[in-house]
Parts: sequence; C-alpha cells; structure tokens
Amino acid sequence: MNGAAFDRHGLEVLGREECERLLAAHHLGRLAVVVGSQPIILPVSYALDGHEIVFRSDAGTKLHAAIGSAVAFEIDGTHNIDHGGWSVLVVGQASLVASDDERARLAELPVATWIAAGDPVWVRVTPTSVSGRRIPRP
Amino acid sequence: MNGAAFDRHGLEVLGREECERLLAAHHLGRLAVVVGSQPIILPVSYALDGHEIVFRSDAGTKLHAAIGSAVAFEIDGTHNIDHGGWSVLVVGQASLVASDDERARLAELPVATWIAAGDPVWVRVTPTSVSGRRIPRP
Repeated sequence: MNGAAFDRHGLEVLGREECERLLAAHHLGRLAVVVGSQPIILPVSYALDGHEIVFRSDAGTKLHAAIGSAVAFEIDGTHNIDHGGWSVLVVGQASLVASDDERARLAELPVATWIAAGDPVWVRVTPTSVSGRRIPRP
Repeated sequence: MNGAAFDRHGLEVLGREECERLLAAHHLGRLAVVVGSQPIILPVSYALDGHEIVFRSDAGTKLHAAIGSAVAFEIDGTHNIDHGGWSVLVVGQASLVASDDERARLAELPVATWIAAGDPVWVRVTPTSVSGRRIPRP
C-alpha cells in the first residue's frame, strides 16, 4: 500500500476504508460491555450495515444489557506462517433497532443465529471511532 | 463428553478444566479494559502461567493502563465447516509483575513480542471467574 502510516510501535495504521473492508469481510467479532465496573467480552455474529455493526440479541442476556451503553467491538486475524496479524476496533454506542421495517431489512443480512432465541431483537453499534492496526510482515 | 451441561440458550457450558486446557493451547487473546467509562478491546499475545494470564506490555500504552484495573480476557475459535464455535472468558484483575525473578521466569514463556517495546513490563490477570461456552455441532 502506498503511503502506509505507522504508529510509534511500528504497527501499520489502517485507514477507515480498510477497516470497513475488513469489517464487511468478516462475520464473527467480539463485543465488550461494562457490567457495573467490570468489562466482559462476548463473541457475536455480526454484519456491517452501512457504517454500523448490527447483531441479534435476546432479552435478558448480557448482550442485551449493552443497549444504551458505550461498547467496543473488535475483529482480528492472524497469519499463522509469519505470526503477522491485524485488528480493527470499533468504539461506539449500542442501541436497539426499534423500527419493524429496519428489522425486516436486517433479517436479510448474513448474521448467524447461534442461540435458540425466544424473541430476538437487533442491536446496532454506531461508531464514534474506528481504528485498525496491522503487524508488518518481517 | 459425559455429563455436559447446557445453558438456557442451548450452549454447552465448559468446565474450568476445559477452559484452562483451551487457554493453555492458544496464544492470542483479547483484553478488554475500561478507559474512562469506555471499554476498548486490544489483541494480546499471552501465555497461561498456572491459573493466570500473562502478557507483555509497554509503558504508556492502553494495555499498560489496565494495570490495577478490572479487565476481561477472551479467546474463541470456530469450526468453519459447521459454523460451530467456542469461547472462554476470564474476568479478573490486572497487576504488574514486580519481581525480577518472576520476570526472568516469564521471559521463557512462548509470548510473542509484536511491538518494538522500549522497556517492556509483564502484566498478569488474576481470574475472579473463568467461564466458557461451546456451540454444539448440529
């Protein structure tokens, strides 16, 4: 890539466009939510919807508790051969998708349903920042 | 596995021993720390040292800011063929490894150094809880 930027640790800084390309190309990420003052991390099957992360939840779960809160969402990948890797971090606010039309549209997205959800709801994460790093190959 | 337990979502509940077997078998995880009231997630190269998670950090980084705080550490894996998967969540407290003897011992562990660290320190996460889930194969 031309004009690659590097941080003070020598990691390549990924631009917003490259971060969104990676987010669109993957479907399993991790969400961090704070319960009390304790962060927890939960794996989530997600899709990128425009510039937002969307996933299903279920009433009463810890994912559900994220609604209305500051959350972090992360994906990463590694190259086994050379131990290179990359990660993308989305920091933002989680909110409930309230509109029936929106929910019907999201139901067409490739989001896996792992849990036997009773009455699933859709949650979206609206980013306040999106950042990514890549470990340069040696 | 005999006597497998399942949660209310139909996910298999992994016992502490199985969680630690998975933690020992992997070396890339993600740490969630809370900065202000905002959680963030950072990929970390780690090792399991006894019952604790240990990783290197570097003064001035966000990982370093985790020292003395409640943190979450997570690993997960998927089976591409059947979309099955598993995850292990460690919730605990991060602290600095202060002893020179301890640091010398940890330096022998298989923990990758991705960043060009100036004066790396070791951080350990002492678990208050370790839990895991596995999606049963269809």
